Amino acid sequence: MRRVKVGVLGATGTVGQRFVELLDGHPWFEVTALAGSERTQGRLYGEAVQWHLGADVPAYARGMRLQPGKPGLDCEVVFSALPSEAAGSLEPLFAAAGYKVFSNASSYRMALDVPLMVPYLNPEHLAAIPVQQARRGWKGFILTNPNCVSIPLAMALAPLHSRFGVRRALVTTMQAISGAGYPGVPSYDILGDVVPYIGGEEQKVETEPLKLLGSWEGEAFRYADIALSAQCHRVPVREGHLLAVSMELGQALPEEDVLSAWQEWRPDMLGMRLPSAPDVPLIYRSEADRPRPGRDAMTASGMGAVLGRLRPCPLLGWKFNVLGHNTVLGAAGCSLLNAELYFASVEQVAETVPDVQPSRSRIPAL
Amino acid sequence: MRRVKVGVLGATGTVGQRFVELLDGHPWFEVTALAGSERTQGRLYGEAVQWHLGADVPAYARGMRLQPGKPGLDCEVVFSALPSEAAGSLEPLFAAAGYKVFSNASSYRMALDVPLMVPYLNPEHLAAIPVQQARRGWKGFILTNPNCVSIPLAMALAPLHSRFGVRRALVTTMQAISGAGYPGVPSYDILGDVVPYIGGEEQKVETEPLKLLGSWEGEAFRYADIALSAQCHRVPVREGHLLAVSMELGQALPEEDVLSAWQEWRPDMLGMRLPSAPDVPLIYRSEADRPRPGRDAMTASGMGAVLGRLRPCPLLGWKFNVLGHNTVLGAAGCSLLNAELYFASVEQVAETVPDVQPSRSRIPAL
Amino acid sequence: MRRVKVGVLGATGTVGQRFVELLDGHPWFEVTALAGSERTQGRLYGEAVQWHLGADVPAYARGMRLQPGKPGLDCEVVFSALPSEAAGSLEPLFAAAGYKVFSNASSYRMALDVPLMVPYLNPEHLAAIPVQQARRGWKGFILTNPNCVSIPLAMALAPLHSRFGVRRALVTTMQAISGAGYPGVPSYDILGDVVPYIGGEEQKVETEPLKLLGSWEGEAFRYADIALSAQCHRVPVREGHLLAVSMELGQALPEEDVLSAWQEWRPDMLGMRLPSAPDVPLIYRSEADRPRPGRDAMTASGMGAVLGRLRPCPLLGWKFNVLGHNTVLGAAGCSLLNAELYFASVEQVAETVPDVQPSRSRIPAL
Amino acid sequence: MRRVKVGVLGATGTVGQRFVELLDGHPWFEVTALAGSERTQGRLYGEAVQWHLGADVPAYARGMRLQPGKPGLDCEVVFSALPSEAAGSLEPLFAAAGYKVFSNASSYRMALDVPLMVPYLNPEHLAAIPVQQARRGWKGFILTNPNCVSIPLAMALAPLHSRFGVRRALVTTMQAISGAGYPGVPSYDILGDVVPYIGGEEQKVETEPLKLLGSWEGEAFRYADIALSAQCHRVPVREGHLLAVSMELGQALPEEDVLSAWQEWRPDMLGMRLPSAPDVPLIYRSEADRPRPGRDAMTASGMGAVLGRLRPCPLLGWKFNVLGHNTVLGAAGCSLLNAELYFASVEQVAETVPDVQPSRSRIPAL
Repeated sequence: MRRVKVGVLGATGTVGQRFVELLDGHPWFEVTALAGSERTQGRLYGEAVQWHLGADVPAYARGMRLQPGKPGLDCEVVFSALPSEAAGSLEPLFAAAGYKVFSNASSYRMALDVPLMVPYLNPEHLAAIPVQQARRGWKGFILTNPNCVSIPLAMALAPLHSRFGVRRALVTTMQAISGAGYPGVPSYDILGDVVPYIGGEEQKVETEPLKLLGSWEGEAFRYADIALSAQCHRVPVREGHLLAVSMELGQALPEEDVLSAWQEWRPDMLGMRLPSAPDVPLIYRSEADRPRPGRDAMTASGMGAVLGRLRPCPLLGWKFNVLGHNTVLGAAGCSLLNAELYFASVEQVAETVPDVQPSRSRIPAL
Repeated sequence: MRRVKVGVLGATGTVGQRFVELLDGHPWFEVTALAGSERTQGRLYGEAVQWHLGADVPAYARGMRLQPGKPGLDCEVVFSALPSEAAGSLEPLFAAAGYKVFSNASSYRMALDVPLMVPYLNPEHLAAIPVQQARRGWKGFILTNPNCVSIPLAMALAPLHSRFGVRRALVTTMQAISGAGYPGVPSYDILGDVVPYIGGEEQKVETEPLKLLGSWEGEAFRYADIALSAQCHRVPVREGHLLAVSMELGQALPEEDVLSAWQEWRPDMLGMRLPSAPDVPLIYRSEADRPRPGRDAMTASGMGAVLGRLRPCPLLGWKFNVLGHNTVLGAAGCSLLNAELYFASVEQVAETVPDVQPSRSRIPAL
Repeated sequence: MRRVKVGVLGATGTVGQRFVELLDGHPWFEVTALAGSERTQGRLYGEAVQWHLGADVPAYARGMRLQPGKPGLDCEVVFSALPSEAAGSLEPLFAAAGYKVFSNASSYRMALDVPLMVPYLNPEHLAAIPVQQARRGWKGFILTNPNCVSIPLAMALAPLHSRFGVRRALVTTMQAISGAGYPGVPSYDILGDVVPYIGGEEQKVETEPLKLLGSWEGEAFRYADIALSAQCHRVPVREGHLLAVSMELGQALPEEDVLSAWQEWRPDMLGMRLPSAPDVPLIYRSEADRPRPGRDAMTASGMGAVLGRLRPCPLLGWKFNVLGHNTVLGAAGCSLLNAELYFASVEQVAETVPDVQPSRSRIPAL
Repeated sequence: MRRVKVGVLGATGTVGQRFVELLDGHPWFEVTALAGSERTQGRLYGEAVQWHLGADVPAYARGMRLQPGKPGLDCEVVFSALPSEAAGSLEPLFAAAGYKVFSNASSYRMALDVPLMVPYLNPEHLAAIPVQQARRGWKGFILTNPNCVSIPLAMALAPLHSRFGVRRALVTTMQAISGAGYPGVPSYDILGDVVPYIGGEEQKVETEPLKLLGSWEGEAFRYADIALSAQCHRVPVREGHLLAVSMELGQALPEEDVLSAWQEWRPDMLGMRLPSAPDVPLIYRSEADRPRPGRDAMTASGMGAVLGRLRPCPLLGWKFNVLGHNTVLGAAGCSLLNAELYFASVEQVAETVPDVQPSRSRIPAL
């Protein structure tokens, strides 16, 4: 019986804070190391961090001293909230040193032997880890989660793709400011305005879902055969990315078939009852004016995607909206769920930890 | 030599106010009648109106008394800012009574003998007026302008459609709150949020541009052969509707051909130098993060559409953004320009009015 | 051993919704009646309400049928979220009919025999109830809670007034839009703007705290001898009223005496461990830029007031900020706490209900 | 007959941009030099600046090359939009080198021989310039304008102080984000929130108005004998600082005396008809809910202060609101007006420049 020691890299940033929050009281993971930038190293977390998630830094983290973000941390797992440049050079050092790296950074998402994983979608991609370790000579590994838009998009398409095939999808995003970190978007640019550009975002959204919905073929990933196009915008919303999607399916269908594919979707991994997994990760709302970020982003404690407004598209067949919380499901929450899945399935930690019951209320609302 | 007497129906509403503002100091038109709802009839405009366009009601209108919105007004032209239900019953009464009705209401936009007009796009649709008058036995007529989204969408497509053909276009909108009038959208619904629904909007956006880009065939309109699909959203922005568009053209082209079609577009009617027409109605901005409502909505005094972000679309060929001011170009301004075009071309008023020079600075910024 | 049956008047409004939310799973109170306006009577709550507090109506309330808001409801307590005109005529009917009315309406707050109560401040005003009943011949009673600004203001002044005396205080408010209900403030008035006027608000803020900080003298209330002045503003914030206060105390003091009066303040009623009472209702934050509505409104599950920025005022001695959640502590939450206090102290219900432990996590975050 | 050559220091910043905009087409001043930070020096202004004031950089400035911000610039006047640290060291070098420095920086505002001037209020403080030059051995000089809050506050108090005496005033501010420059306030801090702290602001507001309303006594300034206290907040508004003021006058008065002191106030300098001076710089609005930043900030082209809501204050006698545009009147506009006053009165440039008529429409709206 053991608790897994975990560390957080980039712990003072927006995503790092979300890791610190979600790990508060976690039944399997114990935070034993927080690492920050050179500027903050050596300081107490509670003093160095400019905390954004509600009023107060979780009590457990306040008195922890920030360490340098390099191997030597006393932990088995590192959750990486590093900026991508730093992640590119540091994460391999951790993996080589034997750490299990669960990374929110984009650096290795599309690497040929690195799983890009959302437990609801492709838990079988865990099988790439031994290949990664063998090829690279690592004792540890890197396992990544996707971009905050790719996740709800792939979740919306997954139940349809497996049943009917999805041929093409066009997505226009309206993304929350928290996706840009802190200080992030200057208020002068976004207060009462919309910015029709987010650097690098469209390219991620057009490729990551193809890996998520693809398969691990033993030696390499095979991408899903879907054509994707994205237009990304920043809007004056704090949390929750809203997507407008038009898509073409592999066959003509009545509306109820699309709806029931969504409503009946229950990924197998839900049976594992992982601590951060909701009962139902994909919710369809039938109101005319939903989903909305302000109302629906915290659905399923921020770990769900919320659909709505399914209707015919004169061009591609169907159009709808889907919403996901960009810093919970869309970042730290997905990475945490990846780690839970890994330990439950590969190391079967769930059997060895006393209090393995789902504890959804652990996940604090914003 | 004469000045044309004009009235405004629905003068206290959001679009009515914009008419009152844009007509302030107009070189051809003199406001001689303002009509309001039953609640406001008989009161002074300056006292009855809850003015939203800057600090003060224009001086000329303050002391005018609001009249009932039915024939009997002392004017030749009525600009209609009526809600569509009222417009449906009242506008024909005015037309029958000999008034020239320039209407922003949606009631007759798609009628078989009523021009739906943007002077930049289809001034030749004026030819439908005599047919309308003959069929309906009216001395006056109804001439309409399109929905606030249809205008910038059709302006973006027009130069491409005439050169290369546009086959299909998908548009996702992010629309300003002023489009909903006053009191309009409750702040509790939109502050820090996005509403993925605007009643009736998508249907208008998918049809009106086809009439605008179509032709008058002597007896009827022929619609343009373009497939359109729209997804409409309300965002917390005051003025300016932003559109994200993906489109398929009739042929493969290099990017510079698309750009030059836009940049070289100079509708013939610009040669008439109408008072409310800008020098260039369609502007392409090359910055990576434009157009934005907050920066660009007042381009060309709110009478222009602003393009940006042209780039390849993996699905349809091209994607881009376009922006238009929703209460100037998108409502009262277009109606006013329609009236100017009518009087300049049909009644040749420009020749008979002394001070017929363009006076762009007349159009006050918000 | 019994559970108390309660009803909510005005259950579909903004404050009514907050009652419905806070009563979800309450250990003492069971909601047996929901009453709405004529428009909604007879409909299911889940269908009639336009729910604003997160994604979903609490499950218990969804299938309840809305009843007329008059005596005949099957309950012992009514929580009144009625508008003040309706409250003026209806609440006495309920009190006469034997109901215990806990009202958020302003109608009877300043009545000579009606307690205006915040349990932290003046629980001894319960003693006015028998006098009220005797004078009016009521079997039931009316007990009110103050305006959403009066509560945090009085809480900030209370510990200082009892120790040192408060002579005068000037308060300028920056109030959230949710205080105006729904549809409430039009977005066109408040998006990117401030409205320097809230009807009737300043008069309430200048008088209610004097009753709260005053005493019940057996026959009548004696008001606290403090001079108050208020300037009230609406700002584009969803939840949480921020107050800037300057005050004159009865004596010159070092700063630490003011701080310790606040930090040591523990009202006796905290010992009763009422279900909705926090451990500490008044929190001082030492950061330079706190309290802020966005960060601090949900402190103590929305049942606390948050102080900050104490510093000398060149005119009156001291200035500071204080913040309170306007629809939890500032409305339904205070009313609920009043009811808990009543039942715990007058009817000693706590002894007779099985699960009387504090259950703070019951109060859902927004 | 000559046009005065002027330069702008810190030309790419928020206030610098406002100088560049307001100087566009100025009848007396010709911009011959723009200076920027080391990062931008040598680049074309139109390429180096991230322009915020509407869509486009004024044409005249686009092709100007940014120069180092030190003496050597080809101009007679420099307008300084430098940050205060840089201003502290650089402005004296310019003054020593013979430049006439009109500075918006705070560095020398309270210096004993430097005028802090608003032409409406204290044009006679120009008399300090020869003393400054003599004491410091400068051929040029430094003349400053106040903080963006101090200006409307002093303008509201000035007509009352001269007639009745103002004893004390308490001011609570709600300030626009543009006051913090660019990138300035992170959107994550202010979207839907209020920040109750602006570094250094309160100290400026409590002292600068005393110098403005004081007198130059030949050798030194005598401060006005008014006690001031300020509480400053940042709100999610783009332009326009709103102040809530309570004040004590030297005598008891009927309300109409206060109103008429404001309404009749016409500073002598208005007779000079300076290009950037409005006809009436102080406007009282009688509506219950005005002034508001969104409606009233551009009153008098942003060069006016707007009053409203005068009513009795139970503590100090009177309370009211006042609003001023923070980057026009509150920064670059005031500095420009100071320069116009200087050249009109000291150098009598008005007589020697051909087209000296007021041209208010020169000042573009935001």
